[in-house]
Amino acid sequence: MIHQNIKVAVDAVVFGYKEKSLHILLIKRNVEPFKNSWALPGGLVLDTESLEEAVIRELKEETNVTVDYLEQLYTFGKPTRDPRNRVVSVTYFALVKPEHHIIIADTDADEVDWFDINDLPDLAFDHSKILDVARTRLRNKLTYEPVGFDLLADKFLFSDLENLYKTILEKDIDRRNFRKKILSFNILEELDEKVSEGRGRPANLFRFNKEQYFKHKKEGFLFDIK
Amino acid sequence: MIHQNIKVAVDAVVFGYKEKSLHILLIKRNVEPFKNSWALPGGLVLDTESLEEAVIRELKEETNVTVDYLEQLYTFGKPTRDPRNRVVSVTYFALVKPEHHIIIADTDADEVDWFDINDLPDLAFDHSKILDVARTRLRNKLTYEPVGFDLLADKFLFSDLENLYKTILEKDIDRRNFRKKILSFNILEELDEKVSEGRGRPANLFRFNKEQYFKHKKEGFLFDIK
Repeated sequence: MIHQNIKVAVDAVVFGYKEKSLHILLIKRNVEPFKNSWALPGGLVLDTESLEEAVIRELKEETNVTVDYLEQLYTFGKPTRDPRNRVVSVTYFALVKPEHHIIIADTDADEVDWFDINDLPDLAFDHSKILDVARTRLRNKLTYEPVGFDLLADKFLFSDLENLYKTILEKDIDRRNFRKKILSFNILEELDEKVSEGRGRPANLFRFNKEQYFKHKKEGFLFDIK
Repeated sequence: MIHQNIKVAVDAVVFGYKEKSLHILLIKRNVEPFKNSWALPGGLVLDTESLEEAVIRELKEETNVTVDYLEQLYTFGKPTRDPRNRVVSVTYFALVKPEHHIIIADTDADEVDWFDINDLPDLAFDHSKILDVARTRLRNKLTYEPVGFDLLADKFLFSDLENLYKTILEKDIDRRNFRKKILSFNILEELDEKVSEGRGRPANLFRFNKEQYFKHKKEGFLFDIK
């Protein structure tokens, strides 16, 4: 086999919905290069672990987060993407409910925090490019899979769901049609609990019925929001 | 940086349509492991080339094919997928018109050939798993992008297009509705040339109008075949 001087890393774009906006999880690096810069959590793959195991381990070590939903995003391999030596990064896309996780920085991370997707610091390496690819993937998935419910709290206001779609799709939605369409899928339960927000009338909380969704899906139902 | 004993390779699933059926390009390995087995074209990435450059070079070296359409598929990283030592494979998905290419085996390949997707030999490594992922990607893409025209000859019979969809979607299609829908997109030109096949009446040849498609697309038209 030819000699090769390339290392393999994993990096994760972890999305969560909190404070009425889409957020991503970032760590502050405590090592060079890009020391003190914010970056996606990640690191080198150990020889004996799979790529998925590596990303789960790195997330746990650097942020204390165990992800609910994980999928491979894209592999970035530009020869100059890391100033030290060549590192190919296999990136992952994760969705979590932030209120289920206590974030704690450790190992290569000095700090860890949730950042509003519309108010991000400069990111280390090519991580802003990785984030762009992840946002596109999230935007596409949102229209054909009910991934929004992996981001929202277990009980949510309908306005949160609307707001999530608006933020991710980066456009206004027709509220009345959106509500009608989503409710027609019969995958939401309207709960008796009400929540007051601001000066509006108290609004009912909703819950996503996963069993119902999978039952519908098996029967050929297509989730489809354009 | 930690010591790591992982190599990075690229492999390509190259689809083409010939002899009325979907084919993939395979090489016969002339080196261990899996010597004399058929495998996807591919090989180790050189330190100075990008992943895309690596797959283009390997395809050229091993098969003489220059691809028309290439996209990253998925990265396979199971620690035991190569019996020699750990190799992470970044895989690519390519579409070609077989009649545009003269295939010639070289370097690690003893032979190169097109194989009917429904009549494949056993493949080396985890390559049949990679192929499964590629077939799923092709099936999905076919419904929302006119990728079929990257596989067909420049001039084709409507029955070839039908047959291609049938083969890739692995189901029968309603011929009349399919024809009506495809023609309604206004992206096909019916040519004056006719071809006789078997005992049927001579049928007109068609050509895909790419400019027209991109023009429509820019105006918001969605290609959509379910």
